[in-house]
Amino acid sequence: MKKLIAEFIGTFWLVLGGCGSAVLAAAFPDVGIGLAGVALAFGLTVLTIAYSLGHISGAHLNPAVSIGLWIGGRFSSKELIPYIVAQVLGAVAAAGVLYIIATGNGSEVGTFAANGYDELSPGKYSMTAALVTEVVMTAMFLLIILGATDDRAPKGFAGIAIGLALTLIHLISIPVTNTSVNPARSTSQAIFAGGAALGQLWLFWVAPIIGAVIAGLIYKGVFAEKK
Amino acid sequence: MKKLIAEFIGTFWLVLGGCGSAVLAAAFPDVGIGLAGVALAFGLTVLTIAYSLGHISGAHLNPAVSIGLWIGGRFSSKELIPYIVAQVLGAVAAAGVLYIIATGNGSEVGTFAANGYDELSPGKYSMTAALVTEVVMTAMFLLIILGATDDRAPKGFAGIAIGLALTLIHLISIPVTNTSVNPARSTSQAIFAGGAALGQLWLFWVAPIIGAVIAGLIYKGVFAEKK
Amino acid sequence: MKKLIAEFIGTFWLVLGGCGSAVLAAAFPDVGIGLAGVALAFGLTVLTIAYSLGHISGAHLNPAVSIGLWIGGRFSSKELIPYIVAQVLGAVAAAGVLYIIATGNGSEVGTFAANGYDELSPGKYSMTAALVTEVVMTAMFLLIILGATDDRAPKGFAGIAIGLALTLIHLISIPVTNTSVNPARSTSQAIFAGGAALGQLWLFWVAPIIGAVIAGLIYKGVFAEKK
Amino acid sequence: MKKLIAEFIGTFWLVLGGCGSAVLAAAFPDVGIGLAGVALAFGLTVLTIAYSLGHISGAHLNPAVSIGLWIGGRFSSKELIPYIVAQVLGAVAAAGVLYIIATGNGSEVGTFAANGYDELSPGKYSMTAALVTEVVMTAMFLLIILGATDDRAPKGFAGIAIGLALTLIHLISIPVTNTSVNPARSTSQAIFAGGAALGQLWLFWVAPIIGAVIAGLIYKGVFAEKK
Repeated sequence: MKKLIAEFIGTFWLVLGGCGSAVLAAAFPDVGIGLAGVALAFGLTVLTIAYSLGHISGAHLNPAVSIGLWIGGRFSSKELIPYIVAQVLGAVAAAGVLYIIATGNGSEVGTFAANGYDELSPGKYSMTAALVTEVVMTAMFLLIILGATDDRAPKGFAGIAIGLALTLIHLISIPVTNTSVNPARSTSQAIFAGGAALGQLWLFWVAPIIGAVIAGLIYKGVFAEKK
Repeated sequence: MKKLIAEFIGTFWLVLGGCGSAVLAAAFPDVGIGLAGVALAFGLTVLTIAYSLGHISGAHLNPAVSIGLWIGGRFSSKELIPYIVAQVLGAVAAAGVLYIIATGNGSEVGTFAANGYDELSPGKYSMTAALVTEVVMTAMFLLIILGATDDRAPKGFAGIAIGLALTLIHLISIPVTNTSVNPARSTSQAIFAGGAALGQLWLFWVAPIIGAVIAGLIYKGVFAEKK
Repeated sequence: MKKLIAEFIGTFWLVLGGCGSAVLAAAFPDVGIGLAGVALAFGLTVLTIAYSLGHISGAHLNPAVSIGLWIGGRFSSKELIPYIVAQVLGAVAAAGVLYIIATGNGSEVGTFAANGYDELSPGKYSMTAALVTEVVMTAMFLLIILGATDDRAPKGFAGIAIGLALTLIHLISIPVTNTSVNPARSTSQAIFAGGAALGQLWLFWVAPIIGAVIAGLIYKGVFAEKK
Repeated sequence: MKKLIAEFIGTFWLVLGGCGSAVLAAAFPDVGIGLAGVALAFGLTVLTIAYSLGHISGAHLNPAVSIGLWIGGRFSSKELIPYIVAQVLGAVAAAGVLYIIATGNGSEVGTFAANGYDELSPGKYSMTAALVTEVVMTAMFLLIILGATDDRAPKGFAGIAIGLALTLIHLISIPVTNTSVNPARSTSQAIFAGGAALGQLWLFWVAPIIGAVIAGLIYKGVFAEKK
């Protein structure tokens, strides 16, 4: 139960911090933080939770991460569903808090920080481009997670590597899909954005999970220590 | 006494660095550092003091942090008031130095880097939005501090996690309240800004302390090791 | 073989992340990540692979790095050619994926993120300026790599130092040559950019290799422990 | 001798990286790195050299740092002058290389990245503001250095804390003096900028040294372990 509360709080923080910085601060007039600031914010949510609650739950904060770790042989199948439920609930709770704050100056929230392709892509990228992007980005994210938490990797540094990997992924791909690699994050925003965003939500479950499974298989098959 | 001098110097640095970068460099023409630069500066004040004076005083630099650590069972009640006094004095001293520098090219200081809501909020957010923001941000800050300094967390990395948590908090919330989560920082700026900023100062003591108490209770009740 | 796959994947990530952020996000309207964001992205590709696959292959991701480590006495001559081949193939694969994504909104790719001098230099710098820049930047990169992985350096921190060294190099030199210091990265982009970029590719093999050799000789001759 | 070569190379890198990013990339049209990028570059020069050559010479890279460490009882008086000479020579060599690169597209170098006050201050700050800024910033820099390298501080993290302290100092104070806290850096730029910059150079030796001496005395008197 302690673990599920940690995943709830951690994913709450990921969405409040990442999507919150996007909604509140990215395009603030003249001194806004831009896409680079949002990328940094997403990464720092993971970095900060990894070092503070990682010793409780492992700080997955993302259904694709839990699935990739399970495929890679690092996470038990019986914890998988409870973790994913806690992550989605935490993400939705964060979207609710963000809604209260963001509308606190009379603003409309528009599509919030929803993910999307075609008309909902920040740079109007196609569904194919979105699919390729989300599969590849999530696969690399999981390879980095599996590698950095390997017993042979330097001790203690995984939180930095994994957090900054998420920053890097956002630096590349916000223009394409607004960057998901995390179905819980996408779900929380689609619920508030509604309409077209909900209709495209399937891709942000399917593609990250495919990427995570590929990475889990590669790491286990090629790089893991044979025991 | 050595500890109180460390808290004085550390909080001096937090305000000079964080508020100083905001006042002097954020909106510098064409090449200004923007809100992202200010967010980085605030975080780096904590990171740098954590590694340099953390072994002296624990590097709280913030009355809400001292209170949260006390509620969480990590800080003695008899040191609480002296720490808070040293922090406020350090913050005010920094505001004084910043005043001397900032007026050194004939500029008016305006509202300095004061915190506020409604008309004093950078994005004109309401008192409710400000209250929610400061409570939630401070609660998450304290959870990260309590977790990252837990015996089970990776050794040595707490200063990075905690400093960058403060960066993250600023990336999200400068548009709402100019970001406090630190009553000493808010007090130092309100004194120089005067007027309306002083009238709103209560919120930047009440909300961070509520957030810190919530976090202290959650960490102690849910995540702390039972001994 | 495991090592070569790691070099392939790592260099794939370096080019997809670094050149990808440049092509997709650097000049995104109003909130683009700019040259600083691209510099951060390049550095984080190396940082993330260093901590996740460094224990497999050493995470060179760059023919000049492999050559510099070989000259410095840290890498075997018989692995040199296979490493370089894996790096170039990984880089080209990444350019292919990036091409698919980048053209997914109907954009032309122009010169991609090719390196160049004179008319192909972002700031129209001469061939001499480009040559000096690439030699000096690669030499410093290799000195940092050789020093940070020396037995006497703090354990575990090399990935941070080396990754952020690449960020630093980009912060300085993107305006001059679009920053190479990595022949595999340059080759992958020149193939897609074609024309003039291919004609200038020689410099981005010759200059980084000269820089790497200089650094290997200096570190071995002056700083290495005598055994 | 090995130590002096390390200080020469390290200070060469500090000036080439820090001043180089300022001259070449800060104001690049549309996507320039701005003052925040320059601040990051300065900090990363120190971070990268600390981890790669710190085990050779201690990576001072700055006459004020050598003096502050000497006053603080951490550095021998007989090495002081050779270190300072090596630092100034390395800085001047870097300015020469930067001159070759920067003029390689036909640009005038103007005042290079010289430090200054009044008309030479980026934000036209007075001599008093400049003096206060440089004394306080250097004093805090040295306190952080002395604290982070104290035996009681977490092992291995000093390079991160000290490098990012220099980033922080630049985030605050570039508008005031273009930020020195380092007489070698100031000297190297004033030589190429000439004229008024040379006439103001005295302040960028006097103020950093005063700050360093204050910090050395405070750390030794208040915070150092009594043996």
